[in-house]
Amino acid sequence: MTVGIVKPKPIDTRVGADGPARGGAGRRDGRQRLLEGALSLLAERGYAAMELRDVAERGHAPRGSIYHHFPGGKSQLAAAAAALEGERVRETIERSLAERGLRETLLMFGELFRRRAQNHPDRIGCPVAAAALARPEDPALAAAATAAFRSWEDAIVEALRAEGVAARRARPFAALVVSTIEGALVRTRAAGDHAPLDDAIAGLAQALDALLA
Amino acid sequence: MTVGIVKPKPIDTRVGADGPARGGAGRRDGRQRLLEGALSLLAERGYAAMELRDVAERGHAPRGSIYHHFPGGKSQLAAAAAALEGERVRETIERSLAERGLRETLLMFGELFRRRAQNHPDRIGCPVAAAALARPEDPALAAAATAAFRSWEDAIVEALRAEGVAARRARPFAALVVSTIEGALVRTRAAGDHAPLDDAIAGLAQALDALLA
Repeated sequence: MTVGIVKPKPIDTRVGADGPARGGAGRRDGRQRLLEGALSLLAERGYAAMELRDVAERGHAPRGSIYHHFPGGKSQLAAAAAALEGERVRETIERSLAERGLRETLLMFGELFRRRAQNHPDRIGCPVAAAALARPEDPALAAAATAAFRSWEDAIVEALRAEGVAARRARPFAALVVSTIEGALVRTRAAGDHAPLDDAIAGLAQALDALLA
Repeated sequence: MTVGIVKPKPIDTRVGADGPARGGAGRRDGRQRLLEGALSLLAERGYAAMELRDVAERGHAPRGSIYHHFPGGKSQLAAAAAALEGERVRETIERSLAERGLRETLLMFGELFRRRAQNHPDRIGCPVAAAALARPEDPALAAAATAAFRSWEDAIVEALRAEGVAARRARPFAALVVSTIEGALVRTRAAGDHAPLDDAIAGLAQALDALLA
C-alpha cells in the first residue's frame, strides 16, 4: 500500500535556508535577505549565538535595515525566520506528498539533509529547533517553532488519513516523523557524518511500511 | 510478543541530572558535585550559555575547584558530564530492558520525562544533546555526545536481537528510538507541555508493536 503516489518526480531539495531564494538574490528585498541570513545562522549557531551584525552580513543586507524591517529586533527576526522555514518545509512536504507519497517523501527528506550534511555535517541544524530552544526566555519565539512543527505534523496526518489510517494511529506516527528528523539532525551534527540521519530515515520507512501493511 | 519481560517493577526515574546522586549530596565529592551542576545547566541552557560560576553554584561546589578537577576547563567538564549522563542513561536502559522489556522501557522513559517536564517544561533538555550541538567548535565534546547516543542505541539493538529481530531491522529501530526522544524533548520545551513527548512515545510503541508482530 502506498500513500497517494501519482508520479515520482526528481527530488526537489529547494527548501529552507539554502533553498530557492538563494538563487534569486537580486530580486529579493531587504527583509527577505535578512530572513535568509537569520535562517542560516539559526541553523548553524543557534539563537543565543545569532548576532545581528552577522545576520546582515550573511544576508548581504545593510545592518541598519534590521530595525526598519524588524522593530522588535532579534526576537522578532528569529520568530519571522522560524515561521518562514515552517511554511517552506510545510509546502515542500505537501507538494511531495501529493506527487510521490509519504514513503518517498521521507526518503526525499533524507536525501535533502544528506546533501546539506555533505559539505558541513558539523554545522547542520534546523532553524526551527533553534527557535524552539529559546524557551523559557522567549515564549513567542518558541511558539513560532511549535506552530511550524505542528503544521508539518498536520500535513503528514492528512496524508495518512487520506490513505485510511485511523486518526489515533496517524497522529502518533506523524509526531514520530517530525521528532525523529529533529533528533537525527542533532545526532548528525554531533557525529559529523550523516549515518544517524540514514539510520533514522530507515527506521521511519520501516515503521511506515508496518503501519500501512 | 514482548521483549525479555521478567517482572515489571515500579518505574525508576532515577537517571541523569536530577537522578540518584542528588539525594546523596553529602557523600559526593567535589568533582561529582561539579558534574551534577554541569548536567543541570547543560540541559537547561545549553553549552554556550553554561557559565562556570553557575556550575559551581548549582553544584554547591567552590568555584576554585573547577580547574583542580577539570584542568581543561569548561570543555573538559562538559565532556565528562555528557559521558556521565551517557553512562547513567545506558545503565537505566539496560536495567529496564532486563526487568520489563523494550515496550515498558519506552513507556518508562515517557513517564520519566513527563515528570521532569511537569514543573518546568520550558526548561527541559538533554545534556547530551547540548554537548552534541558544540560542533564544530568542540569536536571532542561532540564525540562524547555521539558515544553516549551510540551506547543507548547499542543497548536497544541488543535487546531486539535477543528477541530474534534481524540486525538490519534492529539498528534502524534503535536509531529511531534515540532520535525520536531527542527530537521530542526539543519539541516539549518549545511547546511548554509534554504533549509532543506523549505523541512521540505513542508513535514509538506503535512502531515497536508492528516490528515485533
